[in-house]
Amino acid sequence: MRFKDVQIEMAHGAGGKASRRLVEGLIAPLLSNATLDELGDAAVLPFGAGRLATTADSFVVRPLRFPGGSIGELAVNGTVNDLAVSGARPLALLATFILEAGLSTQTLREELEALAAAARRAGVSVIGGDTKVVEHGKADGMYISTFGFGTVDERALLAAGNVRPGDRVLVSGSVGDHGITVLLARGELDLEAQLESDTRPLTELAFALIDACGDGLRWMRDPTRGGVATALNELARACGHAVLIEEDSVPLRSEVRGACEILGLDPLHIANEGCLLAIVAPQSAGAALEVLQRTPGGERAADIGEIREAPERTVLGRNAYGGTRTIDMLVGDPLPRIC
Amino acid sequence: MRFKDVQIEMAHGAGGKASRRLVEGLIAPLLSNATLDELGDAAVLPFGAGRLATTADSFVVRPLRFPGGSIGELAVNGTVNDLAVSGARPLALLATFILEAGLSTQTLREELEALAAAARRAGVSVIGGDTKVVEHGKADGMYISTFGFGTVDERALLAAGNVRPGDRVLVSGSVGDHGITVLLARGELDLEAQLESDTRPLTELAFALIDACGDGLRWMRDPTRGGVATALNELARACGHAVLIEEDSVPLRSEVRGACEILGLDPLHIANEGCLLAIVAPQSAGAALEVLQRTPGGERAADIGEIREAPERTVLGRNAYGGTRTIDMLVGDPLPRIC
Repeated sequence: MRFKDVQIEMAHGAGGKASRRLVEGLIAPLLSNATLDELGDAAVLPFGAGRLATTADSFVVRPLRFPGGSIGELAVNGTVNDLAVSGARPLALLATFILEAGLSTQTLREELEALAAAARRAGVSVIGGDTKVVEHGKADGMYISTFGFGTVDERALLAAGNVRPGDRVLVSGSVGDHGITVLLARGELDLEAQLESDTRPLTELAFALIDACGDGLRWMRDPTRGGVATALNELARACGHAVLIEEDSVPLRSEVRGACEILGLDPLHIANEGCLLAIVAPQSAGAALEVLQRTPGGERAADIGEIREAPERTVLGRNAYGGTRTIDMLVGDPLPRIC
Repeated sequence: MRFKDVQIEMAHGAGGKASRRLVEGLIAPLLSNATLDELGDAAVLPFGAGRLATTADSFVVRPLRFPGGSIGELAVNGTVNDLAVSGARPLALLATFILEAGLSTQTLREELEALAAAARRAGVSVIGGDTKVVEHGKADGMYISTFGFGTVDERALLAAGNVRPGDRVLVSGSVGDHGITVLLARGELDLEAQLESDTRPLTELAFALIDACGDGLRWMRDPTRGGVATALNELARACGHAVLIEEDSVPLRSEVRGACEILGLDPLHIANEGCLLAIVAPQSAGAALEVLQRTPGGERAADIGEIREAPERTVLGRNAYGGTRTIDMLVGDPLPRIC
């Protein structure tokens, strides 16, 4: 894959096809090494007797606060969750702040408090960081970058290559809440809904699965930018199989369904910040679903489909009447800057 | 210390007094924990049988390219150097990019190439990261945040608390090159000079000192934002002693001296990106200076002063005629966004 676009567009940050072209066609080839080339949610490298998972994310969400969360909370949970779906508990975080001159101290204080509260909830400390200031008119108040690391649980042997036909596809919560919440919070659309971001740490949900499934747990991912559809397409390409989704099994709030219908969006393309996708062996699926539903944040967990041999490298959705459609990765950027 | 300013100003990002108030009066108290509260160049925590040094920096330099370097190179060297002065070789880096819509792919490619070349030079890989895109008019092309970690050499027992009266103050190169280079590169001043940024990895210089001095090496710091004066003031406060600088011993290019005279700036307040300050025991000073001068990048290293008992927590400069002045931390922000 080569990146042929002559300039950067918003879609290159949306987490879908354009982002993939930018990362796989330009960034990764120039910085290439064995760990980076895995392009996982976290970069895992051997360390001492074990494996160290490390991850870095920048947060540019607009507006800074939205129902159910804010940039400070996202900055912790997003990074903790990249570790969690890699089978690691966070050991520590570092955070850097790019602040806009003119930002009110009160707003900064609120986001620092949100960040501190999210770190406490996730059981992790922020041990270092940096602060820069740019001129008024840049940086939309603030951007936060967060770096996290943790040791990978030795029982967690997660890889797309472990995924087999017959494996089940689980999702830990309702889909699309975060992206639609942020979109509505901008107030640019004549739409209102009682909806909150799902931002939360996924560590307990991920470790409930590790405890319940052992090596029956094949793969996990938190479907943020690009949504469930993009994450499952990446899985399908990496494992070489098909993913068949029973569309009526996907947990979906009526507010998200309604907003997506009005806006012409597919809920499977909408970002989530507090749910995970897991592929589990068929014999582990019942126990996995049960522990997810018993764990806070997993009450709406569902078995939404299965891995099939064919059509290779494809995600299909099947509706209640038996009709199927191909579910593609996100194309373009209908929802810029939702994280 | 309490942060009483009602809004964020450019000076809060300059690395001097205002930055210190922001960090020590607002950010650190809200996120407080034992490792963070050290406020070192890197955060060091016990890990396995050793110590892990971790550091995070954001880079917002304007312009993106300047004589001798660019944002991509700075993003590697700045992070590698925070590890080096903590006694650690970098094990790996992660980098996140906040890109402005409309950025030319060619510019991004050049910075990725600069980042990759700097990483090769520093002997480290970029193993992960993230990419976000913000609207045209934000982010000045790009901001980069870099995270690095490495294990601390067991011989490196560096702490302000180890510094003793009689210890010598060494600097590894000429002072102020980076800040003045970036300032002139903006073209807003009617000044020109043959000057290049000193951006370089400091790992070999730092380890030359560790090898040569053993526990005679007390403390190191790379004097970036706020310059040598700010770093030494932070040392003076932390160790409780005085730092006496022989001002004529400070290596200074005539171009930097000239620009500072015209602009009314103190070279000791100007940022460096490729030199380190070291405090060494008097019996180690000769060997330390010799190895620095023999190591590439350290040819202009100099012994610039000593630690005294009094006046406590103060930095003094003495000129050739024996007159002394108090050298304060940077106040305000005469040179915004130089890294």
